[in-house]
This record gives sequence, structure tokens and C-alpha cells, in this order.
Amino acid sequence: MFLHHSDVLVIGGSSAGLSAAITAKRQHPNKSVTLLRKEKETLVSCGIPYVFGTISSLGEIVIPNSLLENNKIKLVVGEATKIDVENFMVEVDGHDQIGYDRLVIATGSRPAMLPVPGFDRSGVFTISKEMSVLLELKQKLRNSRDLVVIGGGFIGAEVADECRKAGVKRITIVEDQSHCLGQWFDDEFALNAEAILEKSGVAVKTGVSVTEMSGDAGVKEVILEGGDVVPADAVIMCVGSVANTDLAKKAGLALGPTGAISVNRYMRTANERIFACGDCAEKVSFFGGRPSAIKLASISCSEGRIAGANLFGVRRENIGTIGALGTTIGGTSFACAGLTEQAAIATGYDCVTGVAQGPNRHPACMPGMEMLKVKLVFEKRNGVILGSQFMGGSSVGEMVNMMSACIQKKMTIDDIAVFQIGTHPCLTSSPLTYQTVDAAEMALLNALSSKEKE
Amino acid sequence: MFLHHSDVLVIGGSSAGLSAAITAKRQHPNKSVTLLRKEKETLVSCGIPYVFGTISSLGEIVIPNSLLENNKIKLVVGEATKIDVENFMVEVDGHDQIGYDRLVIATGSRPAMLPVPGFDRSGVFTISKEMSVLLELKQKLRNSRDLVVIGGGFIGAEVADECRKAGVKRITIVEDQSHCLGQWFDDEFALNAEAILEKSGVAVKTGVSVTEMSGDAGVKEVILEGGDVVPADAVIMCVGSVANTDLAKKAGLALGPTGAISVNRYMRTANERIFACGDCAEKVSFFGGRPSAIKLASISCSEGRIAGANLFGVRRENIGTIGALGTTIGGTSFACAGLTEQAAIATGYDCVTGVAQGPNRHPACMPGMEMLKVKLVFEKRNGVILGSQFMGGSSVGEMVNMMSACIQKKMTIDDIAVFQIGTHPCLTSSPLTYQTVDAAEMALLNALSSKEKE
Repeated sequence: MFLHHSDVLVIGGSSAGLSAAITAKRQHPNKSVTLLRKEKETLVSCGIPYVFGTISSLGEIVIPNSLLENNKIKLVVGEATKIDVENFMVEVDGHDQIGYDRLVIATGSRPAMLPVPGFDRSGVFTISKEMSVLLELKQKLRNSRDLVVIGGGFIGAEVADECRKAGVKRITIVEDQSHCLGQWFDDEFALNAEAILEKSGVAVKTGVSVTEMSGDAGVKEVILEGGDVVPADAVIMCVGSVANTDLAKKAGLALGPTGAISVNRYMRTANERIFACGDCAEKVSFFGGRPSAIKLASISCSEGRIAGANLFGVRRENIGTIGALGTTIGGTSFACAGLTEQAAIATGYDCVTGVAQGPNRHPACMPGMEMLKVKLVFEKRNGVILGSQFMGGSSVGEMVNMMSACIQKKMTIDDIAVFQIGTHPCLTSSPLTYQTVDAAEMALLNALSSKEKE
Repeated sequence: MFLHHSDVLVIGGSSAGLSAAITAKRQHPNKSVTLLRKEKETLVSCGIPYVFGTISSLGEIVIPNSLLENNKIKLVVGEATKIDVENFMVEVDGHDQIGYDRLVIATGSRPAMLPVPGFDRSGVFTISKEMSVLLELKQKLRNSRDLVVIGGGFIGAEVADECRKAGVKRITIVEDQSHCLGQWFDDEFALNAEAILEKSGVAVKTGVSVTEMSGDAGVKEVILEGGDVVPADAVIMCVGSVANTDLAKKAGLALGPTGAISVNRYMRTANERIFACGDCAEKVSFFGGRPSAIKLASISCSEGRIAGANLFGVRRENIGTIGALGTTIGGTSFACAGLTEQAAIATGYDCVTGVAQGPNRHPACMPGMEMLKVKLVFEKRNGVILGSQFMGGSSVGEMVNMMSACIQKKMTIDDIAVFQIGTHPCLTSSPLTYQTVDAAEMALLNALSSKEKE
């Protein structure tokens, strides 16, 4: 059945789809915009780890449909089963059709599954974005004693930390890389995160991979490379995510090197009427333009705002993925933007770094003071900022956005050293020893002294 | 008596002098650096309002001399009484001399005094940076019932808020402009600050000036324009500050349009061996280069880092004063960077603004959530950001630094609308509705709709 024609049709109701639809309607108020999604309810995806501890009810993380209504976006709940690129139609649930002038694919991603024997046993979960799966997992955790979290990235660390708060007795993170959070932080920060997890009672095993999940019907043990066995009545896999591209592939749209849908800097696919954004869309790094597999809700929203603005003419360009984010583990906040030193070196940069630490209030006796540590990474030959890492109180969540701006505008060591920061005793570090400024000064000294040695 | 020769001599031990001395020594490790200051102890100046409430002991706000020792800077306590520019010597306490190759004047500012009858009665204070005066005022406030704070800028509002916390019974702020904090915030924000003060028990009288402080030996009443009388056994004047330029003037150095020491973009005076920075140095605005009377510790530190780096060759340039700062009043934080809409219009800009508000955590049920309001001001013809205002939780103190970076790099509406923000449920607003991004989108819509009308 032909449902209706929409000037703009967006497939997907999470970060990318929502921001694309809202931007499209705001900037093209005379165009009709329809959002098609398969879930009855859309969840705040970043909030999902918190439903296992901090947030008692899953209802709290539902994105209200009023966001669509207020923006005059038509909502259709149903699954996009086919894109008919010749007739500009999307098939819904195998039998209905919606026509489009412009189509935005924002089908997101699904959690990756480690393909080891036993991955399909009951008791083995991923962090799904579906309400029913989350409810089942939450129920399971209530009766679990031994939880193994596979993968010590952000989501793994957050889930472990939350399950600990919820009272799960024994929790073990197994990470096959040398450190938890290693994609985002250099060793000195990652080691701190691991120590915080261990201190709070979460066991951390790094540099070892999982070879099997054994048991009967349900999982009972996780077997590690080398033969170690970790008891487990529940396993949560947090090993990354996979772009949802089936629909695009079937429509003949090309995929890129990371397996996501190919798009240009305007978020347009090879089909001039079709755009893609968010986790399902291929990304390039801000640093040199190489393919990037980073998937973050904040990037999805930025891409959605680019796609939504460009539907009927080019307005905005994607500068590439910087990778800015934050988290809180065991009460300490971590945040980063751009490349770690390790990643910068691996990318081919010759780097210089600076580190500074101190209180995040001034004088240090002010209420709410926490210690703050900052590391900045610069390209050596030109002093341009490549990355920043923070550890401390909750304000690091916004300090990283200052650094994201500095990175986007390629600020240099000297720019940051004389940066006009706003400071206040109740809110920030002292202007005399403000850590990003001080870290830039340290990087300068390191650069000067390494030049002397050359 | 000739004390010694120093390659670099810095006069003044507060923000500007300290950061100039530290930067000079770090970047010119082979040069000797001496800091000459008249105070036995230097106080964290921004912390001073907090000694009346939050901070119990004045000792907590003393900057430790170890900061100088650790950086191998020689400290001399004494008053610079003359600069002998011909012989490159500074006279100390009228009888000693220190020789210099490069001199940095960082003599700071002193509180302005309202020249109305009775200003010299006992019980009338300014917020001095001298320990002895602060101790006297703190003692006085212990026995005060009726306090009048003249001037509702940042310092006035902070002092009133702190005295309230300390238990002073009746506090009245008298501000001659139309609103408290009006230099930094547009009316809609300033009105909120006033309402918070009033609700906490501080009376606020705006748009009225003080004509007299009457009484016997001690002040008893503050008389307002129009005849209203406010009882007062203590009065604190927070009506701005005056650059300390006597020493420079006597040495024949020129003063600028705001009465501070003239310097170029490298912080150098007309005398090629003499630099000036901080409150005693003339400033220009980042916006169009007109003279600026803004005095902030954070600007002093930035200028000190510029002066210290440039002493033996140009390394850093002052881009002009942006004016970024924050404060907390009655538990709500306010922060701003750049021009208000009112100031932008007064400067001659044709502006467009955008406002956004919402929770500063996501989902909104996350612990620590507070409502956040943001206003952004852009130049209409090119979409370049001119200013930002924030009200909400403590994270606004760092959000404003993100905006300071955007302003320094002249980011546009579209740059900020697709800004790659780092977000997290525990730390920030949702990426879908992040307020600075949303405010930029709103400004774009306002700009588009006003173009349609043209």
C-alpha cells in the first residue's frame, strides 16, 4: 500500500536520524519530513549502560516522540525493507511504500559479537539498543553472581562499573589489548582507570583474549587464551559495533573500507538523492583523512546536522572525525579529544607532548576541588595540537570541548599557552596554573630541548 | 646600596608578574630572573571574596613562595620607588638598586573609590589585596548588621553572596547601572542573577547611584540619589579598579586612553627594554581593537606569558581582550566570553542571536542534573561568533572556554552547529540538544528569517 510521499524521508530514529530530520525540517520548513524507524521507542543510546545501576527505570531513557511532533516531523513505525532507487520509494514492512525526494539512511549499528565457541549460549549478551533485550539482561543481572564483561572500552568499563553499583558480586573485565580504554588514552591514563576499577572491586584482565564460553544450556565459564577459566553466569560482550548496511547494500550503494556506507564530505552517497549519516556511514579521520571506524552519538548528531542541511544544496562540510568523549569510572572522570600520543605516532606524526596536573579549583581549599591531570599531544614540526587527555572531576567533560575547538581550528602550542581562559575559584583551576595552558608550556619546553639535542 | 643585577627584573608579584617571571625563566633558562614585590605575601586575588564566607582562613589564599623557588626565580620583598631608565636600574625602598637588562612592570591595580562625601568614614571599605585590610574588614563584618555593597559587578555580587553565607543580617547591593553584572550579561541573564540574590536575602537596588555616606566617625547610612536612605554600619565599594601607573609615569612611559601603561601587541612599552602586563597595562579589545578597560586575572596571566616569552625577541602576540569569566551566585553559575548582544550593538555590530536551554545531563534523570541556558551572539553579515553567555551548573565555567576558543578562532554559526562535541550522560548535555550547538542552529534560523523579511 502506498502510504504517502515525503519530501524528506529519514530511516532511523536514533541520534543521526533524529538530528538529520530535525535539521532538515528547521532549515527547509516548507518540505515535508518523515522519520521511519522500526523501534516503537528510541532510547538515549549513551544512557544505556546506566540502566544497570544509576537509572532505575528504562522508561527514563526513552527519547520522547514530542521531539518529533514539536518539530513537525511525521513518525512512521515500521521496518524499511527495501529502497527502490528507481522509483524513489522505500518499502515498509515488506508491503507498504513511502515515496521520497531525498532519503537519509541513518540505520545505525548493532553490537559486534565475538565469534568464539559458545557465543550463542544463554546468559551471553551484548548491549543492545532494544528495550526487550535490555530488560532481559537487567533481570538476568539481578540473579547473577559472576559477571564477565568482554571488552574494556568505554562501554565495557561503564557497564562493569554500573553492575558493581547494582550489587553484582564478582565482575571481571577481559580486554585483549594491553589496556582498558587504550583506544582513547595513553598508558598513564589507562592504568589509572584500571586501578580505579580494581579498587572498586572489578577484576581487570588485559592482554588476553577469550577462546570459549563453556557451559550447558547457559554459560558457566569463560575460557581465556592460555587456559585460564573465569566463572560466569552472565557474560556481556562490549567488543565494538557493526554498521547496519543491509538495506543500503541491497539498494546497490557502495560500502567503504570500514564496511559502512560510502559518503562524501557532504554526507551524500553516490546516489544524489540519498544521504547517509551516523554509525551506518563511512567516516574519515580529521587527521589525514584516513578511514575511521570511530562511532559516537555526538559524531552521529554532527553528521545528521550536516546531512539535514545539505539535502537541497551544499551548506555544510564534514571536517572528519576528531573523536571527543568523556566518561566517569568509579567517580573519576576521563575525557579526551583527538589522537593519543600512541595513535599519533602510529599515524606517522612526529610528536611532542606536555603534561600538567593540579587542583581544579583555586585556591585548593575551595569546595568541590578534585585533582586534574591533562596531557596534550602536538605535531612537532609545526606545533599544531593533535590530541588531549583529561582525568579528574566532572568539569573535564566540558574541558575536552575546549580542546575539540582547538583541534578543529588547528591551534598551536603558543595559541594554547596564551589562551584566554575564563577562570573562577568555584569553577576552574587557577589562571596561573591552568592545566591545558601549563601542558602547552611544558610541550614547548620539551620541543625546545629536543631541538637543542638534535 | 646596589643589591644585584638581574637579566630579567619583574616588578609585581600577582598574576601578571608571577606568570611573566615563570615564563621568562622557563623559556630563557640561562637568564637570571628576579621578582620584586612590596607585599610580604601575595594573595590569590580571585579568591579574596571567598574569605568572607566559604574560606575560613586568609592563609588559605596565600600563593606559596615555593612557586618562585621551584622556578629558580629570586624574590626580593621591597617597594620599587623609581625606574632609572638611563642606567637600567630600579630603586628599591628609596635606597637600594637592582640592575636589569629587561624590566617587566606588573604593578597591577587598586580598587577604585567612589568620590562621594563620606567615602573616608570608618566602616567604608574596598576589596583590597592587602592581608591587613582584609583582616580588618573580616573583623568588621563579624559585628555588622547592615552591610551596603556599592557596585553589582562580579566582585560586588560575590562579596554580597559570601557575606550572606557568613551570616550578615541585612545586605543591600546598590548598582548605578540598570542591572547587576550588566557589563557581562544581557538583561535576561542579569535579571536571573538579581532574582537569585534577592531570593537568598540580598536586597538589590539598581539604576540608582550613591550620593553620600553619612554618619559620625563611622558610617551609619548610605544616601541614594533621590533621597532614599539605606542603614549601613559597613560599606564595601566594588566599583572597579585603577591601574597602578605612578612608577611608570615617573619613568616617562606613556599611558594609554584608559589610563594604563601603553604597550604594543608584544607587551612592550615605548622603551625597548621595558615591558608591562596585567592590570597596569593598556589593553585593546579582540573585537575591533578599541581600548578596553577589562581587568581579569586570567588576562593578566595570558599577558604575562606573552611578555615573558618576548623579552629577548618576539615570540607571541596579544590578540586583544576577549573577556571570558565565570562566577557562582547563590549556587547558580554564570559564565560568559566575548560581547553581550548589548555590547555588540554598542560596538557597531549588526547581530543575530540564538538561545537554547535544557538539562546539562542526559537523560535528565542523571545525578547532578541542572538546567542550563545558553545565548550566543553572532555577527550577522558573516556569521562569526562574537559572544556567549551561560547560566547553570558548575560546568559552565569550562563551557565558556570552549566558546573562548571559538571566538579566538572566529568560528561561524555553521562551525558551531556541527561542532564535534564530546558528550556523556554523567558529564554533559545530550549531543542531540547540546545547548551551544542548538543556540547556533537557532541563530541560523533567526538569520535566515530576518533575511527573508529584508
